[in-house]
Amino acid sequence: MQITQTRAAELLRQADRVLVLCHMYPDGDTVGSAVALCRALHMLGKKARMECGHAIPEKYNYLTDYLQQQSFEPSFTVAVDVADPALLGEGICPLVGEIDLCIDHHHSNIRYAKEYLIDGEYASTAELVYEVIKEMGLTPDRLIGEAVYTGISTDTGCFRYSNTTPHTHQTAAELIQMGVDSYAINKAMFETKTRARIEMERLALDSMEFFFDDKCALMYITRDMIERTGIKEDDLEGLTPIPRQIEGVEVGVTFREREDGGYKVSVRSNQEIDAAGLCAKLNGGGHKRAAGCTILQEEAQAKETVLRLIEKELNR
Amino acid sequence: MQITQTRAAELLRQADRVLVLCHMYPDGDTVGSAVALCRALHMLGKKARMECGHAIPEKYNYLTDYLQQQSFEPSFTVAVDVADPALLGEGICPLVGEIDLCIDHHHSNIRYAKEYLIDGEYASTAELVYEVIKEMGLTPDRLIGEAVYTGISTDTGCFRYSNTTPHTHQTAAELIQMGVDSYAINKAMFETKTRARIEMERLALDSMEFFFDDKCALMYITRDMIERTGIKEDDLEGLTPIPRQIEGVEVGVTFREREDGGYKVSVRSNQEIDAAGLCAKLNGGGHKRAAGCTILQEEAQAKETVLRLIEKELNR
Repeated sequence: MQITQTRAAELLRQADRVLVLCHMYPDGDTVGSAVALCRALHMLGKKARMECGHAIPEKYNYLTDYLQQQSFEPSFTVAVDVADPALLGEGICPLVGEIDLCIDHHHSNIRYAKEYLIDGEYASTAELVYEVIKEMGLTPDRLIGEAVYTGISTDTGCFRYSNTTPHTHQTAAELIQMGVDSYAINKAMFETKTRARIEMERLALDSMEFFFDDKCALMYITRDMIERTGIKEDDLEGLTPIPRQIEGVEVGVTFREREDGGYKVSVRSNQEIDAAGLCAKLNGGGHKRAAGCTILQEEAQAKETVLRLIEKELNR
Repeated sequence: MQITQTRAAELLRQADRVLVLCHMYPDGDTVGSAVALCRALHMLGKKARMECGHAIPEKYNYLTDYLQQQSFEPSFTVAVDVADPALLGEGICPLVGEIDLCIDHHHSNIRYAKEYLIDGEYASTAELVYEVIKEMGLTPDRLIGEAVYTGISTDTGCFRYSNTTPHTHQTAAELIQMGVDSYAINKAMFETKTRARIEMERLALDSMEFFFDDKCALMYITRDMIERTGIKEDDLEGLTPIPRQIEGVEVGVTFREREDGGYKVSVRSNQEIDAAGLCAKLNGGGHKRAAGCTILQEEAQAKETVLRLIEKELNR
């Protein structure tokens, strides 16, 4: 059942021993939302901890290091920024059916929780969590502020993407006013690159191929490139926007070779093309201009599959 | 004399046949401020036009194409985002002494105009111009909104730099609310790269040298690299942050070879180092974390000069 922000706040105020779940391949929004929510629950004297199917990348240490994790048998479970329980990962999946509350901003959320607060108008789940925390009658502290800012900033590409709303900016204004060091967060999230990352960007640029009058750019991230650069897993995030950045490109595609065969395909589009619709045809999903899917085929065949779909979309 | 926003609005309401001046190497803030101000004056039925010592880069066409330029003998001159009349360029320099009003956000402004509204607390001059336009009793239209957003976004690196304030975000919220397409503007300003630009980034990365335990990174943009890539002048903007982006780098330096000899040196620093202070020692200037100067020496000597100054700063 879809509920209001007030009702979500009420549920959380009544709850105790709260388990907050993030999605796999954790990003700033799921981590920021979870940290903010746990911290808010701690401020109310409740037990709360976050869990994720994957290790939280080190770059979020400035949030996770300051969140006191507590051990207890959960009596209330909240999923944040999780559109589908399959995204919780294997270790967490048995919990499905036991999720009491879901807070999310994905239109594509499959409404799996007992009660859910889903609002696709928000640029990030963190903005929504922030509203709920205020509804809980709390004055957010700096850790909550930093966690929420992280969610907002990472999910909007630092206020660049079309999902950015007046509310996003108003929230950012409030957070900076309360002392959040947005410069430091953005520097850590966007501006700092390891040398391995810079080398990887160069190899990825070298691999780029163009199709359909250069309206489509396809870039590879192969196992070989990962080995050669020695790049760490979480340092690979954020490469996928590169192909779309090139002048005239309408669809940017990244083929990332999977360890156990096939490719993780990321599609980034401009105004013309519905990336989510395109990926849905390959059993994937996502947002209108940023979506993904997995193809368990050899390179040539996988490429053919994706390119034919893109060609159709471009010819509409 | 320093004046208030209200007084600046009053001066502009009283003025007619207004010439609005931008600084050389025009950026989004000087262009955005000038377009917004001219448009506001036109809305009041006044004559106004903008002038710049350099051609306005094509990427600002979405602003300049919609600004009706008018020809007339000026009776009131305003400089926007111009910290020093020397930055107006040779063709415009004779006007110095005749500048009635200066609106600027540079702390380093040398207070050359008859009356000036200088406020270093603002992230961009465009924010200040926007306040003045509202003080003039006008309801900003979409062109003003787009121009102001452009100034804000480009001068804050899209809300990333430490100059970003709650006011910056509040203004952005207001502008998006009034219909400004922030996605399209940011895409044009930050996300779109020509193939020549991508090739240039690769060459520049190849040229990178590291000093002082990798705390300093130095990158070159040579005439040869410019010729090889065929990159256009205004497409070279925004390369200078690259060296500082590398993990562990405290000072990022870019040496850009000048056509008539010597180097234009850009310094980008992290918290530790005062870039403006460093460049001031070489007769340059700028902001605390982003400054520049010109060195009319051969490469080896110029490099030595800059590196010795950086070494001193790092050893403080």
